[in-house]
Amino acid sequence: MKRHDNRQYNQLRPVRFSRKVLSWAEGSALVEVGKTKVICSASFEEKVPNWRRGSGHGWITAEYAMLPRATPVRNIREASQGRVSGRTQEIQRLIGRSVRSVVDLTKLGGENTIWLDCDVIEADGGTRTAAVTGAFIAVYEALNWMIRQEKIEELPIKSFLAAVSVGIIEGQCCLDLDYFEDSQAQVDMNLVATSKGQLVEIQGTAEKQPFSEDQLLELVALAKSGINQLIEKQKSLLIANEANNC
Amino acid sequence: MKRHDNRQYNQLRPVRFSRKVLSWAEGSALVEVGKTKVICSASFEEKVPNWRRGSGHGWITAEYAMLPRATPVRNIREASQGRVSGRTQEIQRLIGRSVRSVVDLTKLGGENTIWLDCDVIEADGGTRTAAVTGAFIAVYEALNWMIRQEKIEELPIKSFLAAVSVGIIEGQCCLDLDYFEDSQAQVDMNLVATSKGQLVEIQGTAEKQPFSEDQLLELVALAKSGINQLIEKQKSLLIANEANNC
Amino acid sequence: MKRHDNRQYNQLRPVRFSRKVLSWAEGSALVEVGKTKVICSASFEEKVPNWRRGSGHGWITAEYAMLPRATPVRNIREASQGRVSGRTQEIQRLIGRSVRSVVDLTKLGGENTIWLDCDVIEADGGTRTAAVTGAFIAVYEALNWMIRQEKIEELPIKSFLAAVSVGIIEGQCCLDLDYFEDSQAQVDMNLVATSKGQLVEIQGTAEKQPFSEDQLLELVALAKSGINQLIEKQKSLLIANEANNC
Amino acid sequence: MKRHDNRQYNQLRPVRFSRKVLSWAEGSALVEVGKTKVICSASFEEKVPNWRRGSGHGWITAEYAMLPRATPVRNIREASQGRVSGRTQEIQRLIGRSVRSVVDLTKLGGENTIWLDCDVIEADGGTRTAAVTGAFIAVYEALNWMIRQEKIEELPIKSFLAAVSVGIIEGQCCLDLDYFEDSQAQVDMNLVATSKGQLVEIQGTAEKQPFSEDQLLELVALAKSGINQLIEKQKSLLIANEANNC
Amino acid sequence: MKRHDNRQYNQLRPVRFSRKVLSWAEGSALVEVGKTKVICSASFEEKVPNWRRGSGHGWITAEYAMLPRATPVRNIREASQGRVSGRTQEIQRLIGRSVRSVVDLTKLGGENTIWLDCDVIEADGGTRTAAVTGAFIAVYEALNWMIRQEKIEELPIKSFLAAVSVGIIEGQCCLDLDYFEDSQAQVDMNLVATSKGQLVEIQGTAEKQPFSEDQLLELVALAKSGINQLIEKQKSLLIANEANNC
Amino acid sequence: MKRHDNRQYNQLRPVRFSRKVLSWAEGSALVEVGKTKVICSASFEEKVPNWRRGSGHGWITAEYAMLPRATPVRNIREASQGRVSGRTQEIQRLIGRSVRSVVDLTKLGGENTIWLDCDVIEADGGTRTAAVTGAFIAVYEALNWMIRQEKIEELPIKSFLAAVSVGIIEGQCCLDLDYFEDSQAQVDMNLVATSKGQLVEIQGTAEKQPFSEDQLLELVALAKSGINQLIEKQKSLLIANEANNC
Repeated sequence: MKRHDNRQYNQLRPVRFSRKVLSWAEGSALVEVGKTKVICSASFEEKVPNWRRGSGHGWITAEYAMLPRATPVRNIREASQGRVSGRTQEIQRLIGRSVRSVVDLTKLGGENTIWLDCDVIEADGGTRTAAVTGAFIAVYEALNWMIRQEKIEELPIKSFLAAVSVGIIEGQCCLDLDYFEDSQAQVDMNLVATSKGQLVEIQGTAEKQPFSEDQLLELVALAKSGINQLIEKQKSLLIANEANNC
Repeated sequence: MKRHDNRQYNQLRPVRFSRKVLSWAEGSALVEVGKTKVICSASFEEKVPNWRRGSGHGWITAEYAMLPRATPVRNIREASQGRVSGRTQEIQRLIGRSVRSVVDLTKLGGENTIWLDCDVIEADGGTRTAAVTGAFIAVYEALNWMIRQEKIEELPIKSFLAAVSVGIIEGQCCLDLDYFEDSQAQVDMNLVATSKGQLVEIQGTAEKQPFSEDQLLELVALAKSGINQLIEKQKSLLIANEANNC
Repeated sequence: MKRHDNRQYNQLRPVRFSRKVLSWAEGSALVEVGKTKVICSASFEEKVPNWRRGSGHGWITAEYAMLPRATPVRNIREASQGRVSGRTQEIQRLIGRSVRSVVDLTKLGGENTIWLDCDVIEADGGTRTAAVTGAFIAVYEALNWMIRQEKIEELPIKSFLAAVSVGIIEGQCCLDLDYFEDSQAQVDMNLVATSKGQLVEIQGTAEKQPFSEDQLLELVALAKSGINQLIEKQKSLLIANEANNC
Repeated sequence: MKRHDNRQYNQLRPVRFSRKVLSWAEGSALVEVGKTKVICSASFEEKVPNWRRGSGHGWITAEYAMLPRATPVRNIREASQGRVSGRTQEIQRLIGRSVRSVVDLTKLGGENTIWLDCDVIEADGGTRTAAVTGAFIAVYEALNWMIRQEKIEELPIKSFLAAVSVGIIEGQCCLDLDYFEDSQAQVDMNLVATSKGQLVEIQGTAEKQPFSEDQLLELVALAKSGINQLIEKQKSLLIANEANNC
Repeated sequence: MKRHDNRQYNQLRPVRFSRKVLSWAEGSALVEVGKTKVICSASFEEKVPNWRRGSGHGWITAEYAMLPRATPVRNIREASQGRVSGRTQEIQRLIGRSVRSVVDLTKLGGENTIWLDCDVIEADGGTRTAAVTGAFIAVYEALNWMIRQEKIEELPIKSFLAAVSVGIIEGQCCLDLDYFEDSQAQVDMNLVATSKGQLVEIQGTAEKQPFSEDQLLELVALAKSGINQLIEKQKSLLIANEANNC
Repeated sequence: MKRHDNRQYNQLRPVRFSRKVLSWAEGSALVEVGKTKVICSASFEEKVPNWRRGSGHGWITAEYAMLPRATPVRNIREASQGRVSGRTQEIQRLIGRSVRSVVDLTKLGGENTIWLDCDVIEADGGTRTAAVTGAFIAVYEALNWMIRQEKIEELPIKSFLAAVSVGIIEGQCCLDLDYFEDSQAQVDMNLVATSKGQLVEIQGTAEKQPFSEDQLLELVALAKSGINQLIEKQKSLLIANEANNC
């Protein structure tokens, strides 16, 4: 078997990261992974949710949405339905938890919140992992903005962070599934990991056919190799720019 | 008085129209007017709303939204609030009515709907008029797709259509207000007009200071000159491509 | 062509205004225009919306609704649907903006709100313009109540205000369309103007067939003649009563 | 102790019933009891709720609302809140059950629904019982309309129906409480009864101080005397008109 | 006629009350009446609703729900529907009012609320009256917890309280209807009464066939005999335990 | 370090499974794991969701809720809030996917749905995994009911299924966390696995401190040993009863 787009099993789709894609946002990124395109922004707000008031610490929260025609068939706008779907909420929670795991919330200059907004312009599989990867870039930029604004003195980031999907298709473990592969996969797994090689989130689901521990290990290894490549790209985008100090 | 960006009173901001910006949509456009950026898509669906069933005719409807950080201060996502604001509904209704006024709904190949989605990526004033202008491009493209799919034989479009805002600032009528000017204007007016020079919509509001009939005439003339320029740009984008037949 | 009810093209339907139609309200009015009947009330509240706190200024806001059987076919109650329609929100915003344009909000005795409620008992076209016209009467009464209560010293009203609809039916411009005419009109326009002959709102829409600038001028002139008559009636109702000081 | 408005303990407030108060409705009534004013309409619809389809029988359902300024302090519009309160739902269910108890639903000309809408224009206590009393008039009229339309052959009404409130104030049983009395009552009870002297609904509540069986009996007797008077008024309104056949 | 389960007309189903059925709650009870099973909890909260702030007094409020499969046919979960039904709201209000009628809210140790939650595990008729009866046990326990916590000094309970349903089936008055009887009853009535023999709530409804005052009296007498038995059971459960001081 | 309840690191809390705990449901179970108690029911319905109509296959879906006072502090009822939280939706989706993975949906006797309802009576950690474990028992029972009803001929179950939580506390991997341990864990992971030793779901999250692949392996091994014990208990409950054929 070959992958339908001729990729190797352990090969990412073409990846492109851009920063400063929105004029007003404190941090922003466009993440393109194959045809999947996600705009991520990080917005600074000088308050925290009610339950966190008085803690002296900051907070990071995330929202996710798709344009109605990001997909082959138009999907109904959640605002028009008057409610956010379970899938969207799952993804929002995943992005927020993941980014919080590598930022020191006690060093956000007090009770400040960073809002992460991940909006999918086009979807071809892997939108939630692209959103995590882009949200990290946006938060990194927003934290640098906070330094320039003298709200904080140093970057409260413990490590870089990226995410990727893996899956099993006809018994074969594959890296970075697109929409077509995703619909055929017997196991679908998303991993979030740090630049130190540690895992932050693992979410694997096998509605069609369960999997063994050996397959689990193989999937984790594939994912980590992909995440390492993504983190290298993040670093060259962000650290180069940081040198130029804007 | 001079305009804060040095434009003439009767001068549009720099305008750029792009087509085929979304892979899946039957028609799509990116409209950029100054810093304002709106992605418009047109999606074909083989059914009509309940109240129109049995008519044999088609329908066109529109939805509009902003990314949360399209604006200087993050605005709350309407999906998270569970309801669409009055402002959004007003704009959605305006876009739908405007585009329907120049398309012959009896010639949409039967009971088919075209969904127009206008999503504001960045907002700097004039998003609703940019959305109308872009929605026309998207619907034009989708109708050409319908011809290629042999769902219809000819383009059921009666004329081109574009929209622009005008306003009165410190007594001076101005064309194409940006966000800063909009907040200062005593009168704010949006016009939609056709390539035949006829008006389709006029919406003027003077919460701060009412206006005379003479001022109304001056605003309409300004708007029509701007709309003519926008329609020329639409024509060069669309008719050139049509020649190439895709 | 003749109008179906034998009116002249520039003739209003029979109009009747009543005041003090609700016992509890600080101001109230019943506006009858032909068969259209709208009850308007103005309620005084000693606070302003959150976003206006600390300004020291007042606020005026409006709500609009129809009884379910105000119309030939029963319409579903918005409370039962759990949401306010786009049409209702458009009208509410129009009423609020219009009345605010002629009241000096800095002279409402501090951070006080006047709530305008316009409830349509019977609908035969022109309910939104009747609501604006009646809301002005109600607010005028409520402001006089505030004077009697010594909350303010003088009437913070810059001019009288009324509204009317006009439209084009079979090419003919007509004043004050009823429901039957409205359904046939190719252009439908609502105007709000002051006793000084200035325009406050113009909302014209031509879903069926666009219109020229000459037609726009003719419609505006028709509307202004109708509004002048309505304002005369408001004056005789309100100023007479004011003399009697209650 | 005397009643604050000098009524006898067993005396109704002044009552006035009007019919044909709405142009479009198949049946309508205005019920005035003291300052309480309720407009009731009955609307005919040629279908029944889903759960009743296939039964061959009709249905009657009711909705109730207050204008925001029906009350001394403005109450928030339920449509704006996006939900119908528990109190409103209780009243809607009461009206529907009460009217259904005296109409033969198997003789509504098949699967037809009558919608009862009770809208309180002014509230001074007893709005729910006034609504029941008025809803009966509206349904009676709508059923006569059905006869004239030859949808049914005879009036499917088993008996007349009216409702009144009673209560205990400072130990004294009183008929037809107004708003002021209602707020002082230790027991508040609503009764619905037929022209045959039978009870259809009894709802008594004693949040402040419980009551004995003797008091229950006294309250029921008071209520029945009031209901008899209301039914006499209904008969003179309806049967006189019926004779004139419109 | 005999009852379908061979009970006497004036006979309750087998009744069982349990206390301390939930580990965390300040008070809790399981009430079983025939197959009907309701878990009631009382939760202490150190604040009162907004409208009661500054009063210095406490508050008691109640919520009610059914498990989806408490009933023969699965009923849709209200959380999934996004709204609480009219029936549920009626019951919640009934429970709250009933319990408040026998507790001195001025002696709740200040501005404290007791939340009563009544969740029906299995339903076979009489769930709302079982909920009232169980809510009283839960609140009694929670108040004793407040004494042990030294939040109050003595039990602010004016009398015991229980509730039961009665009805008329084929002309015969019956005590404590189960689901099958309920669906056949021409009159359905719920009564709440105190250990002093006084009535707190009476809610009788006769959608199918109205009833006379004699029948009303007979139903009230039946209900009171049932309520007396329930209160005896409450006393033996609660007072015995109180002696053991936990 | 020792566990606060003196358990071994690889030791489950006391577990008890009961069946037939609800009279009306086609299948039901009570699962008790330590103080955590979940009632699970399986309800048969003769239709499938719209999107599955015409497939000829069945469907299984799940809902999850907590009683308000299942927890140390009362949590707000989702029905009262008018929306289901993201956490609840995540759990509902997890239960549905997990159970569907071991049932052959093409052998559900046609287009039939099984609704799984998991209601948490008391919560002390691990409610979602207890819900999966109990939902399997309930569905097993419901499928046996379908056999007895002759809707299907044989049990369409591919393997047994259970779930457990694991986590890392102060560097130590532990099985079956209770609420106290859960709040301290740096990694929290839920696993669902089959009687064949295959994984169906893995969801691990490390908001506080990321984890290594070695730790992942250790957690998976712990979880599988716990799941094996749970499946043994399921088998002895279900297969014994099956022998008795009810």
